[in-house]
Amino acid sequence: MPKEKKLEDLFHDTLKDIYYAEKKILKALPKMARAASSDKLRAAFEKHRDQTEGQVERLQQVFDAMGKRAQGKTCEAIEGIIAEAEEIMEEFKGMSALDAGLISSAQAVEHYEMTRYGTLKRWAEQLGMKDAAKLLDQTLGEEKQTDADLTKMADAEANAKAA
Amino acid sequence: MPKEKKLEDLFHDTLKDIYYAEKKILKALPKMARAASSDKLRAAFEKHRDQTEGQVERLQQVFDAMGKRAQGKTCEAIEGIIAEAEEIMEEFKGMSALDAGLISSAQAVEHYEMTRYGTLKRWAEQLGMKDAAKLLDQTLGEEKQTDADLTKMADAEANAKAA
Repeated sequence: MPKEKKLEDLFHDTLKDIYYAEKKILKALPKMARAASSDKLRAAFEKHRDQTEGQVERLQQVFDAMGKRAQGKTCEAIEGIIAEAEEIMEEFKGMSALDAGLISSAQAVEHYEMTRYGTLKRWAEQLGMKDAAKLLDQTLGEEKQTDADLTKMADAEANAKAA
Repeated sequence: MPKEKKLEDLFHDTLKDIYYAEKKILKALPKMARAASSDKLRAAFEKHRDQTEGQVERLQQVFDAMGKRAQGKTCEAIEGIIAEAEEIMEEFKGMSALDAGLISSAQAVEHYEMTRYGTLKRWAEQLGMKDAAKLLDQTLGEEKQTDADLTKMADAEANAKAA
């Protein structure tokens, strides 16, 4: 009989998944910032890169709270999402629709993070890990705000410029 | 000089991306339904499978409105998200945390769809494609509702059962 796997195992697996994803995002954001044609979008990507460093630290605190070593596990979802972002950067380089495409790619990243942090936060609550739930909720709030800011930038400028 | 790529090209590319993703999801949902241990979750996946058929038809109408053939383009993001769902199905088979894991996987799928439909809807508005924007918004509403229903099912039963 295989060992029973419970919510704590699922939580740990998903924590490793998002830890890997955040590290991958840390590398992708400077590339997206360099690719952006508007200064405002570049600044937004740079700001979110700095924010992501803090999110990685929060994840390390959650690993600590579990008495586990902070460790990533290949996240195929973020690999795919970032591969699509790289395709946009390549195919729309120098084109008027580039920033609109970059924003859509960044929002796909944010939505992936939102779903994982939303789940992890609820699981932490279920597991009675109050401090971890608070940390995960802080990051969730930042991701939602980033997504909303990107929508505003698309509506205010990038989509019209691309049309 | 390469041909200028505008918002319409980006819209068309993203439409092909989500069309491919929906077809992939149509195949994944019956597997997830068979894997679910609760009858309620199985029924939810089956219901969403039927709903997805209608969403594919709406996409075909949007391709029609553009005068383009409905055609998919490999979506690496959904490939990765579904690969992670398959991993959960395998690693948590027969375990008490299985349904909690299946719900989290399904929510990752919903969030991917939400970001793409949200973007496509706003681009359709920018391009003056009012009917397409309405169709995309209908699907966006269904995805948001499905995500909310899944959260309810996790909170009501699956997470506690897994803990």
